[in-house]
Amino acid sequence: MNILIFGLGALGTVYACLLKEKGHRVTGLAKKPVQETVRERGVRVTGIWGEHQAMLDEVVTGVEQISENRLDLVIATVKSYDTEQAAKAIAGILPPGAHVVLAQNGYGNYEAAAKHIPADQLILGRVIFGAETTGPGASKVTVIADDVLLGSPGNLIGQGKVEEYVSICREAGIPTRFSEQVMKYVWGKIIYNSALNSLGAILEVNYGKLADIEHSRKLMESVIREIFSVLERAGQEMLWPNAEAYIKDFYEKLVPPTALHHPSMLQDIQRGRRTEIDALNGAVVKMGKKHGVSTPVNEVIVSLVKAKEAMNLAQSAPK
Amino acid sequence: MNILIFGLGALGTVYACLLKEKGHRVTGLAKKPVQETVRERGVRVTGIWGEHQAMLDEVVTGVEQISENRLDLVIATVKSYDTEQAAKAIAGILPPGAHVVLAQNGYGNYEAAAKHIPADQLILGRVIFGAETTGPGASKVTVIADDVLLGSPGNLIGQGKVEEYVSICREAGIPTRFSEQVMKYVWGKIIYNSALNSLGAILEVNYGKLADIEHSRKLMESVIREIFSVLERAGQEMLWPNAEAYIKDFYEKLVPPTALHHPSMLQDIQRGRRTEIDALNGAVVKMGKKHGVSTPVNEVIVSLVKAKEAMNLAQSAPK
Repeated sequence: MNILIFGLGALGTVYACLLKEKGHRVTGLAKKPVQETVRERGVRVTGIWGEHQAMLDEVVTGVEQISENRLDLVIATVKSYDTEQAAKAIAGILPPGAHVVLAQNGYGNYEAAAKHIPADQLILGRVIFGAETTGPGASKVTVIADDVLLGSPGNLIGQGKVEEYVSICREAGIPTRFSEQVMKYVWGKIIYNSALNSLGAILEVNYGKLADIEHSRKLMESVIREIFSVLERAGQEMLWPNAEAYIKDFYEKLVPPTALHHPSMLQDIQRGRRTEIDALNGAVVKMGKKHGVSTPVNEVIVSLVKAKEAMNLAQSAPK
Repeated sequence: MNILIFGLGALGTVYACLLKEKGHRVTGLAKKPVQETVRERGVRVTGIWGEHQAMLDEVVTGVEQISENRLDLVIATVKSYDTEQAAKAIAGILPPGAHVVLAQNGYGNYEAAAKHIPADQLILGRVIFGAETTGPGASKVTVIADDVLLGSPGNLIGQGKVEEYVSICREAGIPTRFSEQVMKYVWGKIIYNSALNSLGAILEVNYGKLADIEHSRKLMESVIREIFSVLERAGQEMLWPNAEAYIKDFYEKLVPPTALHHPSMLQDIQRGRRTEIDALNGAVVKMGKKHGVSTPVNEVIVSLVKAKEAMNLAQSAPK
């Protein structure tokens, strides 16, 4: 297959490297400094899936540089705040019959991409393995919580077609399966991150600590209850019947295996990068406003993360 | 006068030292390690009011050790969460006609003390100079924003009597004046601290930074508006006609001179000490519940400060 990996961050590097290794024609799109390194030295993956290395067929910084004009698949791995811009660029080069997999975090990526790309060419992914950047074009896979899920929200794309992409990912060594209710799973991950990642970034502690202390438990439970209220009002079906069922699962099954995990949002703040808060608690606040559901706890959390982000950006800006 | 300083922290040390220097008989009450040092070396004050040193007449760790049984004045400087216990102890030794000045932070000190001490023996203080501990029985006065105000809420004690205590403080070099509306001034300080001290502790920045960033401004304004809603409903008169008038003063007059000030609550957390959050945003939440006014922003701030406090206490506890 002819594949474009849009974004060579931690996740994009894993896809590019493992798919190339299986013999697909792989083009990578990255920013200038990453492009230069990857052109010279290829992409590398280490960690729980072993050591891998591959030279990509092409590395570009913009879609207009891509020579391959019969793309079959685009995997978008950019940050959620760049999704719309990426979708616009992809729409300009996407042949009929090709598909785009959105492998990002948070809520709003599908909706943003669908403004530019026909919904029957859009596949939503729920990626729940952890990868971290160890250098330009170099990634370490640290943990996998569950298979990647691929599916078309509303099932506008037949299962057979999605299964083709599932197969090539599995063959490349990335545990993946089809889901006809992928949006429910994506929301499961958004709730998890809205409780742990945002609050962990504010308090600068790992996930286990948040679940240890009475006062942070209370806050996480408020975050979760507000999200369920919004989703119930919005008519979004969930994998759990109600907030209390989620909270039970959260403490018993979801937090323990990731207790030592440090919030990626804190890393973003400390590195002077923008966080994905708008696609997590921020998206909840926005949906709440639309549906007339008040979300004061999520709102305070968004303001605190954005304050922290702004304070750090101000510090790391040139004087 | 025969004076007992109940608590030889930063503030108590200043009062003990300057009043003793003027020839009053001064007893200090402190914890064991401070008692020992102060008995040996006396109390010392440095900073903007110059250098002072004095040997106290008596230094005790409990009221039962005090030999002087004709106390005229007790100045209570303990943390707000210790007020009730201190008041109970003071009540047992306070002669008729003597008075207690509460020189503490936050809301609830007067109410807690009044459970044990007759209200016509209780003077409320609004202390707004800054002192920090530089060692046991040693204090540095760093800044003074306004005179100390002394008064009896409800004016149960005649102005003439309060002015006697005002005079001895002024003679000792502590700018002080009488106020017949001291509770309004105390609330002014509570609002200021609930916005700046608590949020500064969560975000770990100085007061100026909080006022610089859009998102922390929004949070502080929400804190202030919630407090005004509660106080309006509770019938507590204020020095400002409404929240917007306070907010204007806050940015124009109150924050600029203290822009470089670091939140004392953060220092408490970092030193593994308990904060006074229950007497600030916590008191607002409690009053809100009583009067049916919702205070979600203050509530989240209380939980975050308490989470941070608990996480730090857990860290600093012996393993």
